[in-house]
Amino acid sequence: MSNEKFVYFFGGDRSEGNGSMKTLLGGKGANLAEMASMGLPVPPGFTITTEACGKYYEIGEEKLFAKIMPEVEAALDELQRVTGKTFGKGANPLLVSVRSGAAVSMPGMMDTVLNLGLNPETVEAMIAKTGNKRFVMDSYRRFIQMFGNVVMGMEHHDFEHELETVKAAKGVKLDTELSAEDLEEVIARYKAVIRTQLGKEFPTDAHEQLKMGIQAVFGSWNNPRAIKYRELNDIRGLAGTAVNVQTMVFGNSGNNSATGVAFSRDPSTGDNSYFYGEYLINAQGEDVVAGIRTPQEITIAGSREWAKRAGISEEERRAKYPSLEEAMPEVFKQFDAIRAKLEQHNKDMQDMEFTIEDGKLFMLQTRNGKRTAAAAVRIATDLVKEGLIDEQTAVLRVEPQQLDQLLHPVFNAVAEKKAKTLATGLPASPGVAAGTIVFTAEDAETQGRLGNKVILCRAETSPEDIAGMVSAQGILTARGGMTSHAAVVARGMGKCCVAGCGDAVIDAKAKTIKIGDTLLREGDWISLNGSTGKVYEGRIETRDPELTGPFAEIMALADKYRTMGVRTNADTPRDTLVAVRFGAEGVGLCRTEHMFFSEDRIIAFRRMILVAEKVKKLKEAIAAAGSAAEKAALQAQLEAPLAQYNAALATLLPLQRGDFEGMFKALDGRECTIRLLDPPLHEFVPHDEAGQAEMAKVMGISVAEVKALVDELHEFNPMLGHRGCRLGISYPEVTEMQVRAICEAAAAVPGSKPEIMVPLVGNVKELLSQKQIVRETIAAVEKEKGVKLEVLFGTMIEVPRAALTSDEIAKEVDFFSFGTNDLTQTTCAFSRDDAGKFLRDYVSRGFYDYDPFIVLDQKGVGKLMKFAVDQARAVNPGIRMGICGEHGGEPRSVEFANSIGLTYVSCSPYRVPIARLAAAQAAIKAARKAAK
Amino acid sequence: MSNEKFVYFFGGDRSEGNGSMKTLLGGKGANLAEMASMGLPVPPGFTITTEACGKYYEIGEEKLFAKIMPEVEAALDELQRVTGKTFGKGANPLLVSVRSGAAVSMPGMMDTVLNLGLNPETVEAMIAKTGNKRFVMDSYRRFIQMFGNVVMGMEHHDFEHELETVKAAKGVKLDTELSAEDLEEVIARYKAVIRTQLGKEFPTDAHEQLKMGIQAVFGSWNNPRAIKYRELNDIRGLAGTAVNVQTMVFGNSGNNSATGVAFSRDPSTGDNSYFYGEYLINAQGEDVVAGIRTPQEITIAGSREWAKRAGISEEERRAKYPSLEEAMPEVFKQFDAIRAKLEQHNKDMQDMEFTIEDGKLFMLQTRNGKRTAAAAVRIATDLVKEGLIDEQTAVLRVEPQQLDQLLHPVFNAVAEKKAKTLATGLPASPGVAAGTIVFTAEDAETQGRLGNKVILCRAETSPEDIAGMVSAQGILTARGGMTSHAAVVARGMGKCCVAGCGDAVIDAKAKTIKIGDTLLREGDWISLNGSTGKVYEGRIETRDPELTGPFAEIMALADKYRTMGVRTNADTPRDTLVAVRFGAEGVGLCRTEHMFFSEDRIIAFRRMILVAEKVKKLKEAIAAAGSAAEKAALQAQLEAPLAQYNAALATLLPLQRGDFEGMFKALDGRECTIRLLDPPLHEFVPHDEAGQAEMAKVMGISVAEVKALVDELHEFNPMLGHRGCRLGISYPEVTEMQVRAICEAAAAVPGSKPEIMVPLVGNVKELLSQKQIVRETIAAVEKEKGVKLEVLFGTMIEVPRAALTSDEIAKEVDFFSFGTNDLTQTTCAFSRDDAGKFLRDYVSRGFYDYDPFIVLDQKGVGKLMKFAVDQARAVNPGIRMGICGEHGGEPRSVEFANSIGLTYVSCSPYRVPIARLAAAQAAIKAARKAAK
Repeated sequence: MSNEKFVYFFGGDRSEGNGSMKTLLGGKGANLAEMASMGLPVPPGFTITTEACGKYYEIGEEKLFAKIMPEVEAALDELQRVTGKTFGKGANPLLVSVRSGAAVSMPGMMDTVLNLGLNPETVEAMIAKTGNKRFVMDSYRRFIQMFGNVVMGMEHHDFEHELETVKAAKGVKLDTELSAEDLEEVIARYKAVIRTQLGKEFPTDAHEQLKMGIQAVFGSWNNPRAIKYRELNDIRGLAGTAVNVQTMVFGNSGNNSATGVAFSRDPSTGDNSYFYGEYLINAQGEDVVAGIRTPQEITIAGSREWAKRAGISEEERRAKYPSLEEAMPEVFKQFDAIRAKLEQHNKDMQDMEFTIEDGKLFMLQTRNGKRTAAAAVRIATDLVKEGLIDEQTAVLRVEPQQLDQLLHPVFNAVAEKKAKTLATGLPASPGVAAGTIVFTAEDAETQGRLGNKVILCRAETSPEDIAGMVSAQGILTARGGMTSHAAVVARGMGKCCVAGCGDAVIDAKAKTIKIGDTLLREGDWISLNGSTGKVYEGRIETRDPELTGPFAEIMALADKYRTMGVRTNADTPRDTLVAVRFGAEGVGLCRTEHMFFSEDRIIAFRRMILVAEKVKKLKEAIAAAGSAAEKAALQAQLEAPLAQYNAALATLLPLQRGDFEGMFKALDGRECTIRLLDPPLHEFVPHDEAGQAEMAKVMGISVAEVKALVDELHEFNPMLGHRGCRLGISYPEVTEMQVRAICEAAAAVPGSKPEIMVPLVGNVKELLSQKQIVRETIAAVEKEKGVKLEVLFGTMIEVPRAALTSDEIAKEVDFFSFGTNDLTQTTCAFSRDDAGKFLRDYVSRGFYDYDPFIVLDQKGVGKLMKFAVDQARAVNPGIRMGICGEHGGEPRSVEFANSIGLTYVSCSPYRVPIARLAAAQAAIKAARKAAK
Repeated sequence: MSNEKFVYFFGGDRSEGNGSMKTLLGGKGANLAEMASMGLPVPPGFTITTEACGKYYEIGEEKLFAKIMPEVEAALDELQRVTGKTFGKGANPLLVSVRSGAAVSMPGMMDTVLNLGLNPETVEAMIAKTGNKRFVMDSYRRFIQMFGNVVMGMEHHDFEHELETVKAAKGVKLDTELSAEDLEEVIARYKAVIRTQLGKEFPTDAHEQLKMGIQAVFGSWNNPRAIKYRELNDIRGLAGTAVNVQTMVFGNSGNNSATGVAFSRDPSTGDNSYFYGEYLINAQGEDVVAGIRTPQEITIAGSREWAKRAGISEEERRAKYPSLEEAMPEVFKQFDAIRAKLEQHNKDMQDMEFTIEDGKLFMLQTRNGKRTAAAAVRIATDLVKEGLIDEQTAVLRVEPQQLDQLLHPVFNAVAEKKAKTLATGLPASPGVAAGTIVFTAEDAETQGRLGNKVILCRAETSPEDIAGMVSAQGILTARGGMTSHAAVVARGMGKCCVAGCGDAVIDAKAKTIKIGDTLLREGDWISLNGSTGKVYEGRIETRDPELTGPFAEIMALADKYRTMGVRTNADTPRDTLVAVRFGAEGVGLCRTEHMFFSEDRIIAFRRMILVAEKVKKLKEAIAAAGSAAEKAALQAQLEAPLAQYNAALATLLPLQRGDFEGMFKALDGRECTIRLLDPPLHEFVPHDEAGQAEMAKVMGISVAEVKALVDELHEFNPMLGHRGCRLGISYPEVTEMQVRAICEAAAAVPGSKPEIMVPLVGNVKELLSQKQIVRETIAAVEKEKGVKLEVLFGTMIEVPRAALTSDEIAKEVDFFSFGTNDLTQTTCAFSRDDAGKFLRDYVSRGFYDYDPFIVLDQKGVGKLMKFAVDQARAVNPGIRMGICGEHGGEPRSVEFANSIGLTYVSCSPYRVPIARLAAAQAAIKAARKAAK
């Protein structure tokens, strides 16, 4: 333990760290060390490790500082030696910056102190050295303000108040209008307010300043906004932040000084035609951020582009806003060479911070730059072409989740920034949309037929709204969460949806939406951003996604390296076509009940549901009847419901068949896994009086009878109730009808490859009972149509018991599909509908790393899956196994699926590219791991 | 296959089968063969195997008979040789009986034909041989009637009609009054009605008769009542019935003939003081069954007992109803010797059928006799004392389930038989009760305090009725099933309950019960049989169970041989005491929420529930508040609900502590596993207006606010929702209060051994979060009280994920308890409340062998349990693991628990003796298996 090293020096003639030590030194520290090693001009300094920060929280401040301060002092001595300056005193004082820097970038979240080391003595020395009293006083003023705020805990406005008082007294408006003497007064007032409020003096001992600065940076690791940022950005497992203590260089020491940031390629498009970035003459970093002065471009080309956009003439530009290339050509040349060197060295696009002090360039930071999805794809493919990285690395360079940005329409970014936000709901389905407001599905359809763009606004949606949702550009609902009907259906359609926008009072009768003081009416334009949940007033220009060029290239690379198949969850020919366009190799899950949602079908479906149980019970009673008379009496009772039942089945058969034909055609010979009726039936029947009255009319029975039939379907825990194959077992005629529809469609579309899948099996005997119906029906259709059909037979694995007995089940099927949503519900005993109450807590407290409904719970559910897979393969080596459900398009879960040897994943159409890329990354990572 | 043997001969000088071949020859066939081998007087015959019956259903009648008839004919030849008679012809005709006989006795369920072989020719020969035309004609008449009905499918009443016609014409009332000639006319009419109805003649060919008889017996294996019987008696896995073809002997051939049945010991008490049985002079078996004549006793002692009960003088008895011992002393002596020989040989009480033909004794059947639980226990212990069987065998001789009969009060059997049945409900909780009707829990309590016996009659019960249920002798409800509140609570109390008695219209306002035409009022006597569901008018005498004598002896033997512990599920000191009396070695499950049921507590409990979430949310908001002002505002909002919450907790703490003290005292140093709050909270809050109004008053808020709080607790799938440890995690104060109550009680009762159990854990981190609260609270109480407490810490394993990750969890606990009810729900995805709709179907169709909520599903749930046990033991060899829940008292499940090495099972108090015996049987079977 006594051998622990907490401080790493960089700059001058040596670097103790290097670029690979990001975990220990943080990104900034490791990169500074690396740049120093490469001989680049880096102001020297040292890094206190992230482990020290971890220990700060573990053993407490006092013990930690006893451990690290000797090393800090030694590094400070070295720093004085290298720079020839002295810290906190002397004629050539050493000033330092103290900055945070975690292993993962968290821009602006933690604290920074600049100009540390200033005190009355060094201020005088600096004035003598620079001959620029105002610059020094301004630096001192800034230092006290920053240190007072960040380190000592003063409120920002306490300082602002003093500054404003002095400015008012002097009759000036801008800080820059204050003289050195004015600033001296500000400094005195700053010190006084600190004294009054905190009861202590502003520290003058530079060593004390440094120690306090380090403490503050450590402390800022766990400030609320840093914690929130890590939560939001899913940053986990870090020990803490490193602290970088670095010699100050001044971009604000005169007109031969400057400061700026630059990207080695365009971070928004990935374009490599010029050097992208901005700088400000005679400024410190915070001035760039403050945005008071207009930053200038790095290159002439970039500067000209900028001027063109801003409507500034070439003359004015050259005079007022010259590029760095023009203003400091030598420095630019040096910087451009560094840019190339850093890209070559790091083999990725770089995000750099630099300062020019008296004409001398210093590199303050470099790191792999953040980028948009479009840029990520372009840069990755470009780097391959440039020979900097290989194809596998390119595949690994793009974050699969990011791809979502490229698959949906987006707003013109400038226009969106300018638009007025009315409200924010849940980002229920990504993409953007602009349209006029309609309040009913019918109106959406009508307007859609007229070619008008509309936004369907509903309190909440129901199956009757589907056609309207298809016609609308986007959907806005006032109620419902991320798994509400609107959200789920919209995601399936890849249609923009903002759900659960509680601030919007949607009055469908009055045809108005009230949001705060704004009253919107039918026909008013609004715009939705389904990726952020924002609702905007008016019409914002949208742009369609481009699926060619670099996107197509990276997808081709992904397909080249992935070993797992990618299918889609689709229930309509339209969704199937979208998914095929996105590269789906088949349908992995067609939820047949979704086919009943549209209004022309739901009535027949409801009719079937409502009489099925009655028919079943009567049939059983007839079979068990003792006497012929009893039998006859029951037979008479059966007549009416049986007629209803058969009529409903007869209505549904051709509709389902038509759907399947459409899907088979869209798939053009690709496989299509079709799941038989699955959900609890009560979900489909009308619970409101109007709906029940409608059914009563259709069925020719009383409303009370309909109500009784509906009530009979009530269940306490429907998720564990009469659903899945239990329906097909209770009502074999439904299974038969569905299988017949599939087979007749397959017979009509040559080359179809249907795969029939039984849901919610828990016991091989349930499966066998359905298998018999399936086989007999296939044989019957084959005989009728005189064809030979290729139909695979399989089952969902979504009940723990099925996974546990997968060896028994595997012998009876061609394939498994893990229904990981349901399997998570039962394995963890989490009702998806109810778990919201505690699950968020569970994730934030670290019980689960992620919401197990979003990222597969590998330790629990995954363990069961692996058990099931291994057992199944042992008895049926050729069995095909996949995942369908939301996890099939989630990269971490896809990687897990790859690791347990699944054959394919299946996800909603708009996640297919994500799954393809994630599958490729999983395969590449696995191969690399195996090679090791 | 050509070597298959389908027919086994017995009698004369050889027996092809023996007593061990029950599976192949059926019980009757095997025993006949065995008796013949032993040299006992058995009428010779042969047995057609059960496999032949199996094949009958497998390959069909025609193919089967082609296979077996050659063997049948050969056996028939042998029979003719041995008896010296000829079949269907000749002067000395061979008549046979054709009887069914499966491996498991199914009395009266399948078909029998007697006197087969009679036809015009053999009738004449028999008359000539016996000189008794009436006897022969009566036999022929009976044969045609029996054969016509059983084999040819005629309705019984068709024959009755003809018989009545002849009797009317002759002006007689009894069959016995008909002359031989009258019977000849009956015979002619029988044959005519067969001819008319079936269009064919009654067969005269004896060989054809035999073949048809065999077919009929095979066919009767699957008649509806046989199927039902097997279902009801849980008889499975048999191939079919054997057919026994045996030489007829005639108990009705004169006054030196007789027929009867006898038990080697009293089947109702197990008493061995005399030979128990009945016989009738000059009768055939069916006469005994018909009950027209009074059967006589076998022994003088028995006969005297009988006469005493019937009020018959010794003179009259000796004259009219002499015992066999008196009537045929030689035959009796022979029979008594056979009885002893058979008991010695079979080492069990025997149930024998015999016939005496012309003074010659024939044994027609012997088998191990059915017996009551009391007899089973007595016989088993007696046989050990007699040196016939060893202790282990005695333990195996008693069916654990049967013990239930011995633990509850029973009716005087004669009185129950005489009582008027009013209605039949569900046998919800075993035992019997008689009392006057009351309609409210309060009245039950009042009457109880006065020492009056009452039956509490309610439409359905709710937690408020608990105290009344305790005071009542029994409970009758009109609504609710086997798992309704009344049923579950009554079973826990060991109190008789008839539930869901739909025929009883209970009007609590009018204080009447209407059952059909009967109107009962408050104060009227009724009697309930909770084991059969019967409701009787009036008061039936009851008898308390005896837990001493043979019962205590067999329990001592069970305890000697079992290796697994047996605990009880009890929530009150009272139940705990009952269970300890039944031999419970500790409490395996105390459901703390049950302690809140009584009316004085439910209000405080509801108050706690209703504000807990509000308090939690406000506390979180305060922690996250940005400004001091916001914090203060929230703090002000928190004040009122927090006061409610703390007041409720403060009210509940001493109540819980008192309960625990009572239980610890009752346990007297035995271990007590206490489960923290578990069920979904909405179960406890009032959903009716009155209840909500009451809470509004108590809490000083509006009814609307109460309703809103109640509504917030609604869940779609509560079984998978906010319950179990999720409650303790959301509301740590509740966990703390409960643990504090446990610890304070333990501190007050020296020697207490509390074990704290966390419910519904799915993730070790949930457990750890609760463990911390538990530890801190224990430490706090230890400090306050200045004591050192011995408290174990453990968890339920009832979520599949917990079982899957048992290795992680096992490291953190002293014990596991498998909550097999919940584990079955989640592993099979069966909601216990809803699965009724399909689960009965599932069992009857063989998907599951038993209802998995009654008998543990070993293939699925059990596999998961074994996985969990093995994993846990690997990391924590000393871990104690048990089952609590209904399965813990179910013998098959207990055997499984033993096989996977569980430490104990825990079940409701009244199942403790069953579990003890089942555990002993499991240990003995396992040891025997291991020895092999």
